[in-house]
Amino acid sequence: MNGKPLVSIITAGMSKFGKHEGLLAREIFADAAYEAFSRCPKLNPKGDIKAMFIGHMGEAYEHQGHTGSAIADWAGLTGIPATRCEAACASSGAALRSGIYAVLSGLADVVVVGGVEKMTHRTTSEVTEYLAMASDYPFEQYHGITFPGLFALMATAHMHAYCTTEEQMALAAVKNHYHGSLNPKAHMQKEVSLQTVMASKYVAWPLKLYDCSLITDGASCIILTKPELAKKYTDQPVHIVGSGQASDTIGLYERKSLTSLQSTKLAAKSAYEMAQIKPEQIDFAEVHDCFTFAELMAYEDLGFCKVGGSGKFIESGATRLGGAKPVNTSGGLKAKGHPVGATGTAQAYEMYLQLTDQADRRQVKDAQIGLTHNIGGSGATAAIHIYRRDH
Amino acid sequence: MNGKPLVSIITAGMSKFGKHEGLLAREIFADAAYEAFSRCPKLNPKGDIKAMFIGHMGEAYEHQGHTGSAIADWAGLTGIPATRCEAACASSGAALRSGIYAVLSGLADVVVVGGVEKMTHRTTSEVTEYLAMASDYPFEQYHGITFPGLFALMATAHMHAYCTTEEQMALAAVKNHYHGSLNPKAHMQKEVSLQTVMASKYVAWPLKLYDCSLITDGASCIILTKPELAKKYTDQPVHIVGSGQASDTIGLYERKSLTSLQSTKLAAKSAYEMAQIKPEQIDFAEVHDCFTFAELMAYEDLGFCKVGGSGKFIESGATRLGGAKPVNTSGGLKAKGHPVGATGTAQAYEMYLQLTDQADRRQVKDAQIGLTHNIGGSGATAAIHIYRRDH
Repeated sequence: MNGKPLVSIITAGMSKFGKHEGLLAREIFADAAYEAFSRCPKLNPKGDIKAMFIGHMGEAYEHQGHTGSAIADWAGLTGIPATRCEAACASSGAALRSGIYAVLSGLADVVVVGGVEKMTHRTTSEVTEYLAMASDYPFEQYHGITFPGLFALMATAHMHAYCTTEEQMALAAVKNHYHGSLNPKAHMQKEVSLQTVMASKYVAWPLKLYDCSLITDGASCIILTKPELAKKYTDQPVHIVGSGQASDTIGLYERKSLTSLQSTKLAAKSAYEMAQIKPEQIDFAEVHDCFTFAELMAYEDLGFCKVGGSGKFIESGATRLGGAKPVNTSGGLKAKGHPVGATGTAQAYEMYLQLTDQADRRQVKDAQIGLTHNIGGSGATAAIHIYRRDH
Repeated sequence: MNGKPLVSIITAGMSKFGKHEGLLAREIFADAAYEAFSRCPKLNPKGDIKAMFIGHMGEAYEHQGHTGSAIADWAGLTGIPATRCEAACASSGAALRSGIYAVLSGLADVVVVGGVEKMTHRTTSEVTEYLAMASDYPFEQYHGITFPGLFALMATAHMHAYCTTEEQMALAAVKNHYHGSLNPKAHMQKEVSLQTVMASKYVAWPLKLYDCSLITDGASCIILTKPELAKKYTDQPVHIVGSGQASDTIGLYERKSLTSLQSTKLAAKSAYEMAQIKPEQIDFAEVHDCFTFAELMAYEDLGFCKVGGSGKFIESGATRLGGAKPVNTSGGLKAKGHPVGATGTAQAYEMYLQLTDQADRRQVKDAQIGLTHNIGGSGATAAIHIYRRDH
């Protein structure tokens, strides 16, 4: 038997992911909030919502901190407690965890959790620098290593240990671009071939341009309440039945392994135990494919395949739409885009759509149980949540 | 009758506030954590603590984001869920609120909440720029207004409405420097005269150099648990009996009033109602004196005196140690210092010392009930907590 619901999602919203020229992050978030509010006419946002947690990674992009209050104001929720949560690319995964605490605390029956990032107005070198703040300054950034380099180190170690190939990594890009082509909100909606991925330029060997996720503007949010209140707002709540968050050393140099993330393993263990669900019961998942290799590593750390077996697993087609365990049906960070602060709750948005049969051309048949996996930096944070359809 | 405890503080720690040359924020935080752990030998930090919430305002100071995980690692807590909370200068007030949610949720029985900032290695103009990120970029920062200017606007409006004088504001500096002279962890431990404050240079009329709080390095933390578990760890728990957090428009230009903070009033209402305590029952308080005027405005918004009466109230001596309602016995942001992310839980640290009779030369006699008031930016966030001695 599965665990009982912790909290329930009553509605969700997401802006188009892509370039939003001339808009502020708070304005992009308002789009996501507006969709969530519109989908749930029984919700009175200003009166019912008692707290907000916003994932937002970088002050540098807009020279703007204190984004919780600014975003609450622009979403029409001035006055409510609003806190920015930051855990690098897992910022809104951490915000979701904080929102779950708040609902369970009894102090806030209805809570909005979300995230936003506005990135595309900055140059690639600025974005690379700002993203690098999620790694260890004195021991990594200072010496010039950036995220493609950090994940390349991990990919290389995995290739050495398990004979994983560049083609196997490239398959994650091919698959996720196919899924993105079915998602009208994805940043890139075109398919790419294995040849295109393999022929793209190296960013940090063995990772090539098409192994990297996108620099994107976007926002996402979900609205949570207690399971016993959910039916007041919607006939189709989606329950969160497991939640795990864990940390690890910020620098790679301190870790015992380069081929797996301890944070993912710890958070997954918590979430699976809470949900009383095993990895093989997960019907579909959104995992953190900031680089193609990260998706392969996630398969192993989440128990979707055996350790070292992720290359063969993606070759089998199991994680493609129509396969036994579709992964990143939204297009993932790779094709949908990766507005860092928004990514965690954008994964939850995909869960909401799939588990309420609103995913249209990319609907997973008979989807009952889903999982989201959101990591920060090179894995110093992982936030994992498990979702179940209402019966 | 007072409300029942929400959570209990079992121990607390604070680094020396001042200049910590050559140290990283995570190292300064480790000092605070070490003190908290040392004070509570029955606590097994690595096994008992289930989550961490860290207030940290600015990535820019150390070019370092993702500070939750980095700080958890340096404090010996690698692996636990660790989230950075940011609400400008109210970051650790918001972290405290998040920690309360976590304990009440039942998912984390023992939680560490704290904050840290490393500022003094930056130039004054850099710090001014980084702090300005807590105001509204497009409508305030962009046009050159900084925090002394924003608070000067509010002070001017108050002078106009209520005939408040520069001397009355200066009295907050004189008082808080006196209190700071009694606190061995304060950044500045020397008394200043009214003449010195009044003769200091204008930063933004009517605010002078001595009306402004300090640029400081420092860290603070408290450890929370359920009231029913507190006695397992300590004979002297301090209970938190009320909690309120609220937001407001980030820009001053959208507010109805410049002479009071709506966020403080909303958060105070929540905290007082939860605690079933009235303002006149508060024995002592730590309020957010980022500028002397902010302390006067807090007296009114918290109901310590009548609206417009804060100038007369401070003249009466009521808020000086030995008075009827001592305020900022730690020295406040003005003399103890204002390492922004650390300020909220440094206020809670003072509550812990006072309510366990460990405040030494600045001990408030018969202190039973205390209040902390922590604001972000020009008041777009307020976090207020009420503390009670264990009977």
